[in-house]
Amino acid sequence: MPTNRQVLLASRPEGQAKPDNFKLVSSETPALQDGQVLVRHHYLSVDPYMRGRMNDSRSYAAPQPVGEVFQGGTVGEVIESRNDAYRAGDKVVGMGGWQEYSVVDPKQPGVLRKVDDSQVPLSYYLGAVGMPGVTAWYGLTQIIQPKAGETVTATAATGAVGSTFAALAKARDCRVVGVAGGPEKCSYATEELGYDACVDYKAHGDVASMNAALKQACPDRIDGHFENVGGYILDAIMLRLNAHSRIVLCGMIAGYDGQPLPMAYPALLLTNRVKLQGFIVSEHMDLWPKALAELTGLVVSGKLRPRESISEGIASAPEALLGLLKSRNFGKQLVKLI
Amino acid sequence: MPTNRQVLLASRPEGQAKPDNFKLVSSETPALQDGQVLVRHHYLSVDPYMRGRMNDSRSYAAPQPVGEVFQGGTVGEVIESRNDAYRAGDKVVGMGGWQEYSVVDPKQPGVLRKVDDSQVPLSYYLGAVGMPGVTAWYGLTQIIQPKAGETVTATAATGAVGSTFAALAKARDCRVVGVAGGPEKCSYATEELGYDACVDYKAHGDVASMNAALKQACPDRIDGHFENVGGYILDAIMLRLNAHSRIVLCGMIAGYDGQPLPMAYPALLLTNRVKLQGFIVSEHMDLWPKALAELTGLVVSGKLRPRESISEGIASAPEALLGLLKSRNFGKQLVKLI
Repeated sequence: MPTNRQVLLASRPEGQAKPDNFKLVSSETPALQDGQVLVRHHYLSVDPYMRGRMNDSRSYAAPQPVGEVFQGGTVGEVIESRNDAYRAGDKVVGMGGWQEYSVVDPKQPGVLRKVDDSQVPLSYYLGAVGMPGVTAWYGLTQIIQPKAGETVTATAATGAVGSTFAALAKARDCRVVGVAGGPEKCSYATEELGYDACVDYKAHGDVASMNAALKQACPDRIDGHFENVGGYILDAIMLRLNAHSRIVLCGMIAGYDGQPLPMAYPALLLTNRVKLQGFIVSEHMDLWPKALAELTGLVVSGKLRPRESISEGIASAPEALLGLLKSRNFGKQLVKLI
Repeated sequence: MPTNRQVLLASRPEGQAKPDNFKLVSSETPALQDGQVLVRHHYLSVDPYMRGRMNDSRSYAAPQPVGEVFQGGTVGEVIESRNDAYRAGDKVVGMGGWQEYSVVDPKQPGVLRKVDDSQVPLSYYLGAVGMPGVTAWYGLTQIIQPKAGETVTATAATGAVGSTFAALAKARDCRVVGVAGGPEKCSYATEELGYDACVDYKAHGDVASMNAALKQACPDRIDGHFENVGGYILDAIMLRLNAHSRIVLCGMIAGYDGQPLPMAYPALLLTNRVKLQGFIVSEHMDLWPKALAELTGLVVSGKLRPRESISEGIASAPEALLGLLKSRNFGKQLVKLI
């Protein structure tokens, strides 16, 4: 059996996550039992939610255990199978974690799914046609439920979720306005992703300035908002909401290191009769097929061409996550193994 | 025609509302035009939302105009009619404002409605069987949508909305926990209103203390919450939410004077996948008949016996509102005119 390099969570962060919270080890892959398959990972997924799971706090998922392989999405290829439903060469997406190989028992629901990489690049199954894409789809279609002509906004606009959000909202004839960090990301948002406008938060570092920029970008105010960040950007968005607007609470990355992240003006949710809803996409598996069908269609038709930030080799995974948490990525962050 | 004493909004408050923001005047009631009726008010309604309307700020309703009769709900009796659908002696509920008489054109939708005071006291149409009651009904049945056995909570537990909320939630076999100010209100909540427990916020003046008290009162945490206050009490409630809980944002009286009222832990709305929704009941008139039918049934059967705080005479209306804003009322606050 091949040697399997793995990244473990070595310790929980105190405040900011650091490289020494992770540890690279090697182990032998165990021999397959009946029903199991051996998957060689091509790409590891790196996602903002991972930072939350490094903490030992009450949240929607049990915390990532210390001393165990860092959990996360993977795409790869079956290289050995003792399961009739899979054979060597099958391309698969799963939750293999930060390691080069995983041994999977596909009987467990949701752990492995065959995918077709003839029209959709394999890595996209970790992004636009995977968990982040379905996340954008769920928030837009199930919570915001936009009407044509409405204005919808998203923070982390050029990330894996935001990129897909823009394509889905444009397909519904919305005005789509993003918030992203820096002129390069903002240009990419409007020139490549289909955003009608993009506000650079690095040029608008407080609520008043952000509010003024949003006023210009959203002349008819905001009907639906997809929140990935939290903090003063959300406060400014809330100042520009229309009556009966909807807020999707998907991520609050600005608070993942444990610093306080209050919402300044919650009374606006009352005066504007807002619906605000938090969700996690793994609780809505029944809707994944419908979402993935639309997302595949957008990719195949060329309407969704997401950008990827790729770091090379298993050892680079921790830095890829730490960089993502500092917005150093550009689009979907991946680790490429082969 | 009778002389009509009226309370006007004289000026907008700066910070706390004060008696000199109001002015008592007298005028003649004008002669009736065809189609109009003259109503003599028996009771004026005094409600927390009125404080918000004294400000000149963007909200769900246009601000109360300065120099005009202070707007609000009224119950009374038709004493003269030039409208075939009404005759002298009819008991009516309407939006007559803070004055002794009003001239009403009942053709306008929603301005006047005949009521039956043979089984329900007339004043209740401003409380449990009126706007506050429907407010509680809408929040509980349309937003919280509780299942039997769930724990639901309400702040301002003994007020007009909270009292009704408790009766409606008990009718749905929920555990109902209130938050109110002082031992007298808390005893009343559990002994008369049907609350299973009541937390005295005056004995728990910060988040940690309130959180500990709620932990004891809500051993299975909280599935639905009806918010009338805002501030640290809401923060503490949020620390005790279950996954997939629902928050009704009905009022944030703690911030009505303009002081900042942040929400400390909005990320909890994400980790617990909470739905939070603001609403105003006047936007849901289609549901009033259904709500009023249930509320009438609760009153007639004796399951809802709301308490009233009654101040006497039109001149007492401003102090009644200022007292309400300081929680000096006990149950529904009314001004009795005759």
